[in-house]
Amino acid sequence: MKPTGPIPPHFSARDDGQLLIGGSPAEELVAEAGGTPLFVYDNNIVGAQIARFKGAMPDGIALHYSVTANPYEPLLEFLGRYIDGFRIVSGGELKRLQSAKLAGIPMNFAGPGKLDWELEAAVKAGATISVESDGEAARTIRAGENVGSKPKISVRVTPPFAIEEGRVSIGSRPSPFGVDADRVPMLVHGLIEAGVDWRGLHMFGGTQCLDAEALAEVHRVTVAHAGEIADAIGAPLPELNLGSGFDIACRPGDVPLHIDHVAAALNRTLCDAPPLLATTRFTIELGRWLVGESGVYLTRVVDRTESCGQIFLTTDGGGHHLIGATGSLGERGLTNFPLAVAHRFGDPPEEQVTVTGCLCTPFDVLGDEVGLPRAEVGDLIAVFCAGAYGLSASPQAWESRPLAREMLV
Amino acid sequence: MKPTGPIPPHFSARDDGQLLIGGSPAEELVAEAGGTPLFVYDNNIVGAQIARFKGAMPDGIALHYSVTANPYEPLLEFLGRYIDGFRIVSGGELKRLQSAKLAGIPMNFAGPGKLDWELEAAVKAGATISVESDGEAARTIRAGENVGSKPKISVRVTPPFAIEEGRVSIGSRPSPFGVDADRVPMLVHGLIEAGVDWRGLHMFGGTQCLDAEALAEVHRVTVAHAGEIADAIGAPLPELNLGSGFDIACRPGDVPLHIDHVAAALNRTLCDAPPLLATTRFTIELGRWLVGESGVYLTRVVDRTESCGQIFLTTDGGGHHLIGATGSLGERGLTNFPLAVAHRFGDPPEEQVTVTGCLCTPFDVLGDEVGLPRAEVGDLIAVFCAGAYGLSASPQAWESRPLAREMLV
Repeated sequence: MKPTGPIPPHFSARDDGQLLIGGSPAEELVAEAGGTPLFVYDNNIVGAQIARFKGAMPDGIALHYSVTANPYEPLLEFLGRYIDGFRIVSGGELKRLQSAKLAGIPMNFAGPGKLDWELEAAVKAGATISVESDGEAARTIRAGENVGSKPKISVRVTPPFAIEEGRVSIGSRPSPFGVDADRVPMLVHGLIEAGVDWRGLHMFGGTQCLDAEALAEVHRVTVAHAGEIADAIGAPLPELNLGSGFDIACRPGDVPLHIDHVAAALNRTLCDAPPLLATTRFTIELGRWLVGESGVYLTRVVDRTESCGQIFLTTDGGGHHLIGATGSLGERGLTNFPLAVAHRFGDPPEEQVTVTGCLCTPFDVLGDEVGLPRAEVGDLIAVFCAGAYGLSASPQAWESRPLAREMLV
Repeated sequence: MKPTGPIPPHFSARDDGQLLIGGSPAEELVAEAGGTPLFVYDNNIVGAQIARFKGAMPDGIALHYSVTANPYEPLLEFLGRYIDGFRIVSGGELKRLQSAKLAGIPMNFAGPGKLDWELEAAVKAGATISVESDGEAARTIRAGENVGSKPKISVRVTPPFAIEEGRVSIGSRPSPFGVDADRVPMLVHGLIEAGVDWRGLHMFGGTQCLDAEALAEVHRVTVAHAGEIADAIGAPLPELNLGSGFDIACRPGDVPLHIDHVAAALNRTLCDAPPLLATTRFTIELGRWLVGESGVYLTRVVDRTESCGQIFLTTDGGGHHLIGATGSLGERGLTNFPLAVAHRFGDPPEEQVTVTGCLCTPFDVLGDEVGLPRAEVGDLIAVFCAGAYGLSASPQAWESRPLAREMLV
């Protein structure tokens, strides 16, 4: 039997064992949505994460949500009420915010390969553009002229470190993201001369980190490096976007990120910040950490088979909806996400089974040799930690299968 | 400088160096389609592959196309004129064939987790259902009763071998695909007693193999194993579906599959086939091998940057359209697909560059440290071997970006 990741602590069962999501039994949610496969997102869990962040972090750290993590519009609407802004990386994500009536909220537009129409739409919408190159800076200035608005521009800086396997390694390396530090001052002077609203710097160091000390180190290095760049520019930084990197525990052996430790360390870092950062506004952008644990993927068992003594549960879902849980379609880097039989939540395992999706590939495995209470054809399987990088990050059109349903409770 | 896969031999340049696809310059095709990113599929290349297969293989081997490889409808329509049937794995793929007006052609419906509505639609459409389990056999019989048609049923057998890293290893292993051989005779007897149209067996051993001798061995083992099962059943096999596994050369060092060797060996295998297979009809299902080389992915350079001495070309395409060329979004198992600067096709390399997509992830690399003629912002990059497992196998909704265009020439 192979281990699974830990089930997030927010879930419980009704007396009869039925998994409750946002207080409702899983089967009732499926009936309400019209069938499986179904993603259910619990806004209380998202709200609790926001409160946790706000409670822990020093005052004045703005919290932005990375739309890429989950662009489901009802979720964006909910988030818009409680967070300070959004991070977008495409014109499509801007449209989603506008369609969720969130156009007025602060936005940061980052990411390589921005197209002219995207820059124009974002400048018009009042977003801060994190430019990734001199060429993009020039195109953003033109976009501002074209739409008749002074563009807000920050400069994304290639970080002088990387998080690798949870550890921070110092040193710059070639990157398509951002501008090398030594070229930033000249670019910023050019922006100021061009009369744009220069909003400071953006530095995004790492991703998917559960080690609080590594993140604390990233913040220290980022702030120190931003101070050096500010010195070279010779002006205070209006804003510093610290990026993200906060992960959730969803793999076997994962221990949740100790956010209080990250926050306390960041507080010390900011108390000792370089002089030109004394009035800087700081932002942290989170995606997975805010919404990942809120999501449950519900899929129904279509077949129960045995082959060479091993039991397989084939479901109507799979990697075309939640590729992260399968490792990937191309390579099986799989460790199991937490999962459960939805009407027997919390029951002890009775057998070893492999839970697969319906795709015609051996990589479509949701639970590899996991221990579960016995499940039959027709039962619901719940896969947890499905709130981020699910549907939008998966090959939805694989095998021309229908889209999964989504629901916010 | 890192190597790339070989450019398929079907492409050439106009006098001015512009890449021709199906006789048309790449830039003209982009203008016709309305922009980039664009997949262009050349039906002459598909036709040549079909002719190659038919010319090499023994008479009477039916050629089926696996819709999963590329479900673009104009391509399905084209294929429908020259091949013997289609392999589908979902009700959605059946709908695509019907929408391409191909409902009358032979179809084989395989794959785990078939839903009742899919079984009913497929039986009604006259498809042969490759059942993967006893439970699915029973549901297929019921589907036939529900739609008032006698179902055509074959039994998918878990193969007693696997292709691993191009080599055949003998021995059964637990699988969610198909029925273990020792349980097949009882299942077939049940099907015959139930009065269905029993169509034989389906055995799918491996995938993405370039080694002709390994495929020849798969065919030998499959035919021998089918003979043993036929003996145990005590009846001749009406049909034997040999599956597929033919790959194309798209990675550095790949040598194209020697299909004449596969065909000659299969001919010998069939001459020596077991007695109960003397009148059996054989089918091979191909996807990637038929259409993979026909496709070119065209994407435009949006930015040209330098970081720590390395040059990056950022394009408007990426892994959300052609995930195979990037390894995967989750893990960088990358070796470079063949690629070219479209208006300087065939020119010698002038510099080392890394060609990236527009996604905000370090995994979105189309060409890692490749040698290319110098390309500027606005130039077209062509990625070859993009005809199979492109758009439909990629996370199209990643970052809420627009779909790629597609075109058959």
